[in-house]
Amino acid sequence: MSRSPGRKQENHKISRELFVLTYGALVAQLCKDYEKDEDVNACLDRMGYSIGIRLIDDFLARSAVKKCRSYSETADMIAQVAFKMYLGVTPSVNCSSATGNEFSLILDKNPLVEFVEELPEERASLCYCNLLCGVIRGALEMVHLAAEVSFLQDRLKGDAVTEIGITFLRKPEDRKHRR
Amino acid sequence: MSRSPGRKQENHKISRELFVLTYGALVAQLCKDYEKDEDVNACLDRMGYSIGIRLIDDFLARSAVKKCRSYSETADMIAQVAFKMYLGVTPSVNCSSATGNEFSLILDKNPLVEFVEELPEERASLCYCNLLCGVIRGALEMVHLAAEVSFLQDRLKGDAVTEIGITFLRKPEDRKHRR
Repeated sequence: MSRSPGRKQENHKISRELFVLTYGALVAQLCKDYEKDEDVNACLDRMGYSIGIRLIDDFLARSAVKKCRSYSETADMIAQVAFKMYLGVTPSVNCSSATGNEFSLILDKNPLVEFVEELPEERASLCYCNLLCGVIRGALEMVHLAAEVSFLQDRLKGDAVTEIGITFLRKPEDRKHRR
Repeated sequence: MSRSPGRKQENHKISRELFVLTYGALVAQLCKDYEKDEDVNACLDRMGYSIGIRLIDDFLARSAVKKCRSYSETADMIAQVAFKMYLGVTPSVNCSSATGNEFSLILDKNPLVEFVEELPEERASLCYCNLLCGVIRGALEMVHLAAEVSFLQDRLKGDAVTEIGITFLRKPEDRKHRR
């Protein structure tokens, strides 16, 4: 009495809600494990980094994007291709420095916090979505781009938008060139 | 210098890989937290249960399915609509009891273990995907169907397929009726 559906081609797309709730369970578990918000944030960043260094292969294979020629192109790629692909949203990109190596990804709506109303008072310093920073940092490192990635604004903390800051760390030869 | 993409209608679909890797991070964290596989399994089941009781609303709203009239219809719904929606795969359904309340969902391929080669030797009793059992159990409970859900076979443990067993627990009036 077996009813097998026709074998269809595999679908890489899934519904976001299960992911969002599973991510919530992960953060809740880390909040049980670590008393200090800073430790939870660091752990999420580390986890994200490990994910990013693996996810980049999948990203390059499926997006078929070409090599970016500038930090600006890279930031656009993260926002318009990677975020769209993995989270179903497209942040806007802001270049926030005259030196051209600091960018912001601005999310009007953050899908990862869909079921989160606000942070509990005792978790005021929690960067709930810090995994994302680690993912971006890890993925960039695998394409030989060192970067610092962190939340600059967070709607969960009462800010008007959610803003992820990416600072590309110039390579020694870049610095030399600029002197 | 802000480049904002045109606002498109929100997309609930995301790419599976980020979810799969995040789930892996969750299981790895629980393996750090708990020495015994049984405790990790129980924790994953509890987390899944909490997710299932929230996910059911999303499922009913987006699938627009009608009320199932039998356990068999319910099992088909889980396989063909819910698995498809949330994990992008469709298990086949097997009715494994003459009494009609025991079903198996059989997955030739389990997307959640995409990046997992095999369980480490010291984790031989780990039910890596036990969260799914909890999700199903929680979601069913919210539509007034009590069920036991567990892994019967697991490719990660060398079985030919992955099989999730669902036993619907008959209500007292059902039992009475059958006597």
